[in-house]
Amino acid sequence: MIVELVTTGSELLLGQIINTNSSYMARELNSMGFDVVYQTTVGDNRQRMREVLEHALTRADIVITTGGLGPTQGDITKEVSAAVFGRSLQLDEACARHLREQFAHWQRPMAENNLRQAMIPEQAHIFKNYAGTAPGIAMEQGGRLLVNLPGPPSEMKDMFDRSLRPYLEQKYGFAAVILSRVLNTAGIGESALEMEVRDLILAQKNPTLALLARPSGVILRITAKAADSQAAQQLIGVMEQEIRSRVGKYIYAVDDADLEDVVGQLLLERQFTIACAESCTGGLLTSRLTDVPGSSAYVMGSVVSYTNEVKESLLGVEAEVLRRVGAVSEETACQMAQGVRQRIGTDIGVGITGIAGPGGGTPEKPVGLVYIAVAGKNGTVVKKNIFSGTRRQVKYRTTQTALDMVRHFILDI
Amino acid sequence: MIVELVTTGSELLLGQIINTNSSYMARELNSMGFDVVYQTTVGDNRQRMREVLEHALTRADIVITTGGLGPTQGDITKEVSAAVFGRSLQLDEACARHLREQFAHWQRPMAENNLRQAMIPEQAHIFKNYAGTAPGIAMEQGGRLLVNLPGPPSEMKDMFDRSLRPYLEQKYGFAAVILSRVLNTAGIGESALEMEVRDLILAQKNPTLALLARPSGVILRITAKAADSQAAQQLIGVMEQEIRSRVGKYIYAVDDADLEDVVGQLLLERQFTIACAESCTGGLLTSRLTDVPGSSAYVMGSVVSYTNEVKESLLGVEAEVLRRVGAVSEETACQMAQGVRQRIGTDIGVGITGIAGPGGGTPEKPVGLVYIAVAGKNGTVVKKNIFSGTRRQVKYRTTQTALDMVRHFILDI
Repeated sequence: MIVELVTTGSELLLGQIINTNSSYMARELNSMGFDVVYQTTVGDNRQRMREVLEHALTRADIVITTGGLGPTQGDITKEVSAAVFGRSLQLDEACARHLREQFAHWQRPMAENNLRQAMIPEQAHIFKNYAGTAPGIAMEQGGRLLVNLPGPPSEMKDMFDRSLRPYLEQKYGFAAVILSRVLNTAGIGESALEMEVRDLILAQKNPTLALLARPSGVILRITAKAADSQAAQQLIGVMEQEIRSRVGKYIYAVDDADLEDVVGQLLLERQFTIACAESCTGGLLTSRLTDVPGSSAYVMGSVVSYTNEVKESLLGVEAEVLRRVGAVSEETACQMAQGVRQRIGTDIGVGITGIAGPGGGTPEKPVGLVYIAVAGKNGTVVKKNIFSGTRRQVKYRTTQTALDMVRHFILDI
Repeated sequence: MIVELVTTGSELLLGQIINTNSSYMARELNSMGFDVVYQTTVGDNRQRMREVLEHALTRADIVITTGGLGPTQGDITKEVSAAVFGRSLQLDEACARHLREQFAHWQRPMAENNLRQAMIPEQAHIFKNYAGTAPGIAMEQGGRLLVNLPGPPSEMKDMFDRSLRPYLEQKYGFAAVILSRVLNTAGIGESALEMEVRDLILAQKNPTLALLARPSGVILRITAKAADSQAAQQLIGVMEQEIRSRVGKYIYAVDDADLEDVVGQLLLERQFTIACAESCTGGLLTSRLTDVPGSSAYVMGSVVSYTNEVKESLLGVEAEVLRRVGAVSEETACQMAQGVRQRIGTDIGVGITGIAGPGGGTPEKPVGLVYIAVAGKNGTVVKKNIFSGTRRQVKYRTTQTALDMVRHFILDI
């Protein structure tokens, strides 16, 4: 089955936002065995959108649009799609009721124009929107399927995963599958990792192996093609095992899991609690830890200490240490970790102090210098790091390294 | 002049990389006065690419491709483009020499297949590649222009800026410029905002007005087309003034500024300091405040209180209040804001308590319920919110609302 993706929205043609919807859908549809062979972007212009959809329906079996389902006058995708199939729009009572319920739940008044979102083409299949207000639809005619999904990536993904994927699977079944597995690493650089798996990359055929630098660290992507998902998984498994035998200790998770998920799972399993004392990361480490649903089971609290006074009063860092070696030092990081652990009463305490930049660096203590300490009942480990990048990158890389230190700290207990 | 951008490459159709070339070129071409009205992506397949290019040349004056100019068998864009115009490829001696010189400079042997990059269609204009090896080309026929640029973003951008931009400017002159200004709002929903400016949207011509939902809130984008930049700015200014007279209090910044930048600037100007007591946001508010370079001038510190014990011991929230109305309550939020302000000794204190979900909700206190308090020396304001979305979205939306409350709190002092 040939698929064409049509993204709509003048903001894409003006170059004001980057189209991430197409790559997400393309990846997912390929893994389901569909061939995505065209992607087209068109603005919020009725005539051009109509021509694009009509042309797409001549060369693809399935056309999936994103965007233009909102409540405003500029949102025309559903109307144009209905017109292409010669259908009219009617108010769908269930959709309208769902909209009213959502607004009532948010305790917000619903403006009349929101009801445009409940106008549905005749004989259309409706996909409920669990992440926003605009429902999606699917219409069939002459063996061609035309699907409208919402534009905001969070809504599109939720609707794709929850509704469109099972809808397509049920309708078309599977052909050959292409599956990928991503091994996420921390604590090793791109070239060092490449040296370890170079022969596998050079000899690759099926599965293929790619090494890619991501903000979170370097990832290894294994991709296999097979008649069914089980055979593809098996091909991937053999390659994964070989890789793990070489660089297993750097691999913290498979596929989409983040380091905070992995650390959270470890804390849960061991029934450990954690608290952080953050200086240059300004709360980002605790925020990442608390991004994980259920993290209130192990995150007790944290202190962001942007001044020496707060380091002393809330964390018990000694004034003498701050005077002698300064706030950005190994000793301060250790006392912060120990102090927050003791004051909040947790199993593990993390202390972070450094210079995120762009200002504040000196020859002895340059921008990017960060000390990270992890304290437990059997002692404290501390690591000196020099991170590159912008202020936000230094903050993020610090939290990534801190999370990996906590992971090893727990595994070593 | 109507432009169509055609990106080529099977990796785009597989969703393995995100297409950033189109948004870059679209932004640049629009600012030069061209109308980019279609973007198409097609794989490395001769027949499909040929059909896509032929179709593009029926609806656009200028077609610009990216990708497929490399040395491998899969790089077919130049050949297909030449075939569409019925031209043959010939070895260009100057290109071949340049290639040999580049490889000599890198002290690398040049594989024979690299010479494919020096095969140029008859009567083509050549763009040298200063950032890589593959040259770009431009061919004209029947008033239509077909341009091939390389795919790697760094090469494409370098060639666009250095060669294609002056080439197009010389060929077509400046038709007109298109400029946009974005007004960022907080504290008002998409439909409510549309009601306020509906007549402007319906009557829009030049400048145009669009209303778009973003994770940060709703934005208003004013776009004007004029003979020169000054005239465009003036058209935008008139529309902006009209909008500000209606909804000015919701507009916190113009173009790319984030709310944390705006709040940071206000704190600096008034020489106020700030501290936060965060429960459900887990440190995200303080992390955003400290994303701003120089924020150590006004952020003193913060407490993340994920348990009642921490709320009592580090923030001084009364046990009686926690027992009587619970941790997620107006009173607790106020005591958190006042407590952190007093303990850390700042001008402003922020208190946040709520239920980020997905678990933990009850009929009386549903997921998404968040109380936000801002305390100063003259008193405390508190707001009850019900946010929708995932855990991360609830966290982010909470910080966005809190920052906007701090903004108004300072402006009202």
